[in-house]
Amino acid sequence: MCMDVTDMDILIKNILIPCGDGTEKSNILISDGVISDIGSDVTATESCRVINGERRLAIPALINTHTHAYMTLMRGCADDLPFEKWLFEGVMPREDRMQSDAAYWSCMLACTEMIKSGTGTFCDMHMFPGASAEAALKTGMRAVITRGLSGSNGGERRLNEQFAEIEKYGQEERLSFMLAPHAIYTCDRPYLERISALAREKDLGIHIHVSEGINEVESCIKEHGISPVEYLDSLGLLSEKTLAAHCVHLSDRDIGIFAERGVSVSANAKSNLKLGNGIAPIARLDEAGVNICLGTDSTASNNSLNLFSEMNFTALIHKGLHRDPTVIPAKRVFEYATKGGAKALHLEKVGELAVGCRADIALLNTDCPSMIPLGDVSSALCYSANGSEVDTMIIDGQTVMENRTLTLVDEEEIIYNAKRFAKEV
Amino acid sequence: MCMDVTDMDILIKNILIPCGDGTEKSNILISDGVISDIGSDVTATESCRVINGERRLAIPALINTHTHAYMTLMRGCADDLPFEKWLFEGVMPREDRMQSDAAYWSCMLACTEMIKSGTGTFCDMHMFPGASAEAALKTGMRAVITRGLSGSNGGERRLNEQFAEIEKYGQEERLSFMLAPHAIYTCDRPYLERISALAREKDLGIHIHVSEGINEVESCIKEHGISPVEYLDSLGLLSEKTLAAHCVHLSDRDIGIFAERGVSVSANAKSNLKLGNGIAPIARLDEAGVNICLGTDSTASNNSLNLFSEMNFTALIHKGLHRDPTVIPAKRVFEYATKGGAKALHLEKVGELAVGCRADIALLNTDCPSMIPLGDVSSALCYSANGSEVDTMIIDGQTVMENRTLTLVDEEEIIYNAKRFAKEV
Repeated sequence: MCMDVTDMDILIKNILIPCGDGTEKSNILISDGVISDIGSDVTATESCRVINGERRLAIPALINTHTHAYMTLMRGCADDLPFEKWLFEGVMPREDRMQSDAAYWSCMLACTEMIKSGTGTFCDMHMFPGASAEAALKTGMRAVITRGLSGSNGGERRLNEQFAEIEKYGQEERLSFMLAPHAIYTCDRPYLERISALAREKDLGIHIHVSEGINEVESCIKEHGISPVEYLDSLGLLSEKTLAAHCVHLSDRDIGIFAERGVSVSANAKSNLKLGNGIAPIARLDEAGVNICLGTDSTASNNSLNLFSEMNFTALIHKGLHRDPTVIPAKRVFEYATKGGAKALHLEKVGELAVGCRADIALLNTDCPSMIPLGDVSSALCYSANGSEVDTMIIDGQTVMENRTLTLVDEEEIIYNAKRFAKEV
Repeated sequence: MCMDVTDMDILIKNILIPCGDGTEKSNILISDGVISDIGSDVTATESCRVINGERRLAIPALINTHTHAYMTLMRGCADDLPFEKWLFEGVMPREDRMQSDAAYWSCMLACTEMIKSGTGTFCDMHMFPGASAEAALKTGMRAVITRGLSGSNGGERRLNEQFAEIEKYGQEERLSFMLAPHAIYTCDRPYLERISALAREKDLGIHIHVSEGINEVESCIKEHGISPVEYLDSLGLLSEKTLAAHCVHLSDRDIGIFAERGVSVSANAKSNLKLGNGIAPIARLDEAGVNICLGTDSTASNNSLNLFSEMNFTALIHKGLHRDPTVIPAKRVFEYATKGGAKALHLEKVGELAVGCRADIALLNTDCPSMIPLGDVSSALCYSANGSEVDTMIIDGQTVMENRTLTLVDEEEIIYNAKRFAKEV
């Protein structure tokens, strides 16, 4: 099952790549984890592994900018419930029961699901140090690891855990880190100020839930006289290194602040719908020049980690809501899921299928009915594909899935342990 | 590739079946196309084929109550465009170019996609006589065939085509028929009156687009002084044998009329979003006691025939819109996709996994990450599965797909011809 395919050059031969409003056949050469050449005349180097690209389409691997992988074993644990019941009776007792073993296998299951649906990178807000980092390293994924911070009480321990994780994994090429104050309603002001100062001092990005539910906004206005976005801005927490998740309830002023500060917004369409929070103003944010990316949130509130489904929702709901089929075209949504994600996570040379970029590539089977006929690639990805078309995944130049089987880990072991620990949770 | 498995008894052994809020292990015996027994102590009959159900879940095959299979080769032909451009520049020129060969392979591709995503029955509104009927017969699907009727001019020809189709295929057990006046804006009043009288005379159901776009409603009120639903009611076209597709723009009075007449509504969430028509008031319709079922519409306006995705949208969008996570629970959506569809299409003993029902069964691989952990079945189907979990399909007691390969037809031939004819269209 486990093949060592690291550090080997790869030539993907006769593969379709997106080109204008269609596709063209080409070859992709990967050397040292980087896309070193693309073209119909590109040939194999010495000791190069050749992947037959016939009847396949190459796209940049997708980027999931907001999830909580440790919660994957809670999939379906609390559906169709009012928010408070969902949180206090569904999720929190399970978080309390969860041990680090369960969290680890939960993350392994998450990575399996993400790889199998074309995701190469994920940004994780966790509460079990090491679990998602280890799962990313083992499965071959790229990840941005952020420890969920809440406090004052306990806030110090959580910060220490974050810095210990950076210390331990800081040299890993596929891992990077941000500071993750959970939300304004779970962190008091001194704690947020401390995190703001630390982020500047250590040049770390900020990953935070913002204006997810209407209660959050109303409480903030009641307590501080300003919106959550204005409050965060007053604490120096908004910059081009800030990734704000959800952002369902924004005023025009909030959107202006995001645009001015260069904040990235992680759109989590399905989670916001499922928990009854509403629909984020993505069209208005995009129009204002805010960088948009996509996130699934966790399986406790989605219940899927499949970004194809998220692209589908993002491309469709705003058209219906605005009664305008031209709102947020597929091409734009595909950018959210790739380039937009890379920008939000400050990953250079990721999210594009171009010479000089990291080789994070998904290969899709174009013989699947959903891909026939294949015209515009963004349309196929956002409107008809469901993620199961992905049959090969290359991340950082390493083949982590081939013919829908993970190559670096034993899927049977993951399934066995995920089912076993789900019972405990 | 083609195995003759008709008329053979089947025992599905050690299969999970939905039970309360979870599952239980059982055996399912199928004889003469009917589920003849279910239970842990049910054993094989003589000359019975045994399917190993380990690590699999059985559900009733899904029912797609509104599509246009001949349009499948137009997938992605006209995305992100205003409605008129979509119709007049995208769809209609392609309909004009299309020949019956292309329509047939379009329908074969549609059936392939539907079977592979768990659909056992579809209701097709077509304009190429015989194409969808033949595709259903060849692939093993159950279908309700309805010739799209528009006129006055040409209306007679289309009616004749419908009755010729009924004459030709009327004895086929898996096929049934309805009359399908396309919409109030494509049929004049005398034509609608004629269809209404014919439906009563021949005891046929009615399949019609209703209040899909706001223009349709406004024009109707301008011309007739009443809503499309009131207008149809005045022509005697609404009864418990009427299947009304889309129904996005309904007044309270319209909903009352539907409930009183026993009309079924085919919810087409994704098509309505994509074309910018809006969101149908499914929660209000359900509350009023109207029978709801699901439809994908065609790939020119969805662009997928996958009912899992449709269940996902139906279960999620109304929660977000109403800002209430308890609206339309997953269990209800799964009923729309099964029992609700069977009722709408007047199919007896279909849409349920119960002794005495027709054996239309989808088997799902419970080792797919999206199905782990597996708690409530409706939750898994509506919120996390994407349809690729379906690995075996039995329709009318016949195994039409096994290990994701169609058994009655040659998939390579379908892919080849679909790609070939797509170029002509």
